[in-house]
Amino acid sequence: MAISQPSEVRPELSWSGWGDPGQASAPPDAILELLRSGLGVTRATPGPVSISGLELTPIRLDPATSEALAAIVGEANARSDQEARARHALGKSTLDLLALRAGAAIGAPDLVLAPASHAQIIQVLELCSRQRVAVVPFGGGTSVVGGLAPQSEGFASVVALDLRRMNGLLELDRESRLAVLGPGLLGPQAEALLAERGYTIGHFPQSFEYATLGGFAAARSSGQASAGYGRFDELVVGLKVATPAGSLILGRAPKSAAGPDLRQLILGSEGTLGVITELTVRVVPVPERRVYEGWRLPDFDHGVATLRRLVQDGPVPTVLRLSDEAETALGLARPGELGQSEGGGCLAIVGYEGTAQDVATRREAAADVLNAAGASPVDGAGEDWARDRYRAPYLRDALLDAGALVETLETVTFWSSLRGLYDAVGAALREQLTGQGTPPLILCHVSHVYPAGASLYFTIACAQLADPIAQWRAAKAAAGDAIMAAGGSITHHHGVGRDHREWLPAEVGELGIAVLRAVKQTLDPVGILNPGILIPAKSGAAAR
Amino acid sequence: MAISQPSEVRPELSWSGWGDPGQASAPPDAILELLRSGLGVTRATPGPVSISGLELTPIRLDPATSEALAAIVGEANARSDQEARARHALGKSTLDLLALRAGAAIGAPDLVLAPASHAQIIQVLELCSRQRVAVVPFGGGTSVVGGLAPQSEGFASVVALDLRRMNGLLELDRESRLAVLGPGLLGPQAEALLAERGYTIGHFPQSFEYATLGGFAAARSSGQASAGYGRFDELVVGLKVATPAGSLILGRAPKSAAGPDLRQLILGSEGTLGVITELTVRVVPVPERRVYEGWRLPDFDHGVATLRRLVQDGPVPTVLRLSDEAETALGLARPGELGQSEGGGCLAIVGYEGTAQDVATRREAAADVLNAAGASPVDGAGEDWARDRYRAPYLRDALLDAGALVETLETVTFWSSLRGLYDAVGAALREQLTGQGTPPLILCHVSHVYPAGASLYFTIACAQLADPIAQWRAAKAAAGDAIMAAGGSITHHHGVGRDHREWLPAEVGELGIAVLRAVKQTLDPVGILNPGILIPAKSGAAAR
Repeated sequence: MAISQPSEVRPELSWSGWGDPGQASAPPDAILELLRSGLGVTRATPGPVSISGLELTPIRLDPATSEALAAIVGEANARSDQEARARHALGKSTLDLLALRAGAAIGAPDLVLAPASHAQIIQVLELCSRQRVAVVPFGGGTSVVGGLAPQSEGFASVVALDLRRMNGLLELDRESRLAVLGPGLLGPQAEALLAERGYTIGHFPQSFEYATLGGFAAARSSGQASAGYGRFDELVVGLKVATPAGSLILGRAPKSAAGPDLRQLILGSEGTLGVITELTVRVVPVPERRVYEGWRLPDFDHGVATLRRLVQDGPVPTVLRLSDEAETALGLARPGELGQSEGGGCLAIVGYEGTAQDVATRREAAADVLNAAGASPVDGAGEDWARDRYRAPYLRDALLDAGALVETLETVTFWSSLRGLYDAVGAALREQLTGQGTPPLILCHVSHVYPAGASLYFTIACAQLADPIAQWRAAKAAAGDAIMAAGGSITHHHGVGRDHREWLPAEVGELGIAVLRAVKQTLDPVGILNPGILIPAKSGAAAR
Repeated sequence: MAISQPSEVRPELSWSGWGDPGQASAPPDAILELLRSGLGVTRATPGPVSISGLELTPIRLDPATSEALAAIVGEANARSDQEARARHALGKSTLDLLALRAGAAIGAPDLVLAPASHAQIIQVLELCSRQRVAVVPFGGGTSVVGGLAPQSEGFASVVALDLRRMNGLLELDRESRLAVLGPGLLGPQAEALLAERGYTIGHFPQSFEYATLGGFAAARSSGQASAGYGRFDELVVGLKVATPAGSLILGRAPKSAAGPDLRQLILGSEGTLGVITELTVRVVPVPERRVYEGWRLPDFDHGVATLRRLVQDGPVPTVLRLSDEAETALGLARPGELGQSEGGGCLAIVGYEGTAQDVATRREAAADVLNAAGASPVDGAGEDWARDRYRAPYLRDALLDAGALVETLETVTFWSSLRGLYDAVGAALREQLTGQGTPPLILCHVSHVYPAGASLYFTIACAQLADPIAQWRAAKAAAGDAIMAAGGSITHHHGVGRDHREWLPAEVGELGIAVLRAVKQTLDPVGILNPGILIPAKSGAAAR
């Protein structure tokens, strides 16, 4: 039984774009002018049709199985209407948003189930295994790597398992600073339940408002304050997992030498190995004080060296982010001032959360490091960033409507390879898109830092061609190949999904893939869980 | 090619006890008196016979295979003489030492190979898979959980793969603070190679002087300074692994969202999934200053609360260890003063390593916390601990000779369960050994701390019965069952080996075991790698 559950109605993510439709806004004139004059964006493109007008794949699930599944979760929690199906069809990548705009037949689940318990999920997985029905575990629906659109061929049907009802705060161990939480809690719901009791997880990715704890774990999410609180996979101490082969309960202790750490197989498994039904997560007291500062560094290389200096020798800020010259010039770290940035150089956001004394101590020591590196404070930039930190996805929707192709991609490598990776990815994108006749604007920031390396987060904008899906696929393929050639990882925190799947053999080797397949075969013998996601097909013939 | 390799001759671990035989010493009189009067130890037991007098299992390996294996590594690096076989037969658990004393036939490898490269190991594994020859990857030989004595039934032979020649510093990336190192480097060898260049790994387990980097990784070692530097599994960023199915090269970045973290399958695999042939490990600059202090806390509960306070809210010392009342009274944290402790309460060792400023800052802040908790400084205790930190295993040898049964065991749990676990393990050991007629002395310390929990390290001493092996097995079984019942993990840093294997299903569930078996089947289809270690037999019928 849950100690507590959210009392307010769960906010619904826009079916065709990001977040709360009421918060969408037109891009600043300066940006529209830049699109026209700088990128040659001329034709506004039609927005998505209405949700009722969407063409979805026909329902294939036979009525008997449908009824049996509905009986497990309760009829009120099994839906196959157009809206439920459409809302569980795709994630929020630009490819997904373009598909909705294109109006072509969208592959949608035939049935959306909202189970209330681990036991119900076990039953659903047993039945679906018997009937060869593919199952998509569904958290917030914010995947940007095609993680929610499984391969349906070879299966009798596809059903979505929406975990929204599994949203309890199940236990709070104040002594050990651990909370046991349901996987369907949205970021703000979990934080609210914990804040009432004085705690926070400290995990604030850009998708925070609409993504779930289960999704954070399944996709190895990393939050904007990861320098201080850690990545989500570092915060998960225990997992309860429902699989077609039974239950896994992992994490008897914070750390152990009892063999391989099987938690690390479930983290990052993206719904292909099991359904996370409970998470035990580290929590800390709500910080007494939160301060975010902006600092201007002379250039990207100096900025990178300064971030490295801070994370390797301390003091380590809670938030540490560095925009390159292009991103700084456009003001992307301050969406409220987009297109109005002045001053040149590279903007770093440096944040501190903790007790008043801890914040003061780290802030002072870090200021010494920043000043010594030639940085100068930028008034208001930290506050701007904090205020608008979750707004960037809204801007993408508006820019897509304006005829621009806009998407992000991210990677990570060791410090000694960071500049090479940055150059290689930028060059590959520029060459590919310019070759297609749409010279791009490429912005980048260092989004997460570690003692051994850091991640790079690219934002790309250019004019849409007639087939923007093919246009982006070509650019993405070039970027992915460049990432692997330059020694990066294909993804730092977006996950693999379908969009990064074909690079996974280069990432972990064919033998690594064989290990993943063996684990999947053990936990999911029929292969019903999110088929086609994460693990490449054996033939290697699947298209990118 | 290596940048550098150790120039001095590698020190040889005593074949029948710990470390350098020249450093062995008799226990203090106070301890001998305690054994006699307190524990009823009366009969001194015979020490081990000579190495040439040991009875080893007969060699089964056919000459043709033996020659083919020798040809891969070079004849000079393939030995089947009595000494080589005996030195690779067992680890350093009390059960191992008692077996050597009992003089019964010792299961020993038929051949000891010392390969020089990943490629040679791949060849050895291919040949051994074809010939059904079991292979024991061998680092320093310091296992205390039976990790070096595989099941030989069902195999044509057993060979040991001694990794001592793979001892290079292969790369040093100063910018990323990473070193690529050979698995056969002893702790001090690796530290010396790095110290010449200004770096340290900071991993100092009690076995440091004689254990290898490959072993640290394969068994998820944790060092005495883990609070500051991290556990070894947290320091490993990259792994190159030779398996019968081919090579695995893992770790393209410090952290990644590219699926499950397969490094975490190799870490803790104890030679059953592959042979680690290269490690990429985080390094930091050699600390400018090292300070170790002793603090006396009023009692164990106050001590535990204070450690928790430090690791959860900071400042986090580099070393943090707390003896319980019994261990404090006996002076086990200060082996040089064994049996002479005064003052009562519980002794904490609190150490700091870093820049002079960092040490001063943390030390001052931690002193405030300790003083507020009612702790008082104990002059010299920190220095004593640091000087004698690797000496405890020598003492065990001497006490075994004196007729005592002495062994250690360890576990880990969350803070809220720590006191219950402590009580349960102590009670189980006391009941079991007292029931056998040998009331024990049970000492304990908190050896490693995390924000969510801590480890407990028990030292047990009692009089030896006529069959001390059966005596300890019964006590160990009682302790293991108590650990699982009280919610602990069966091992915090010793690993699983054979001795903890039968508790692994309780640790990760039968489905977790099935996952491990599937991974092993993929990487080691014939099952030649360390058979019987880590993963319990399918029947579940294997004796403890």
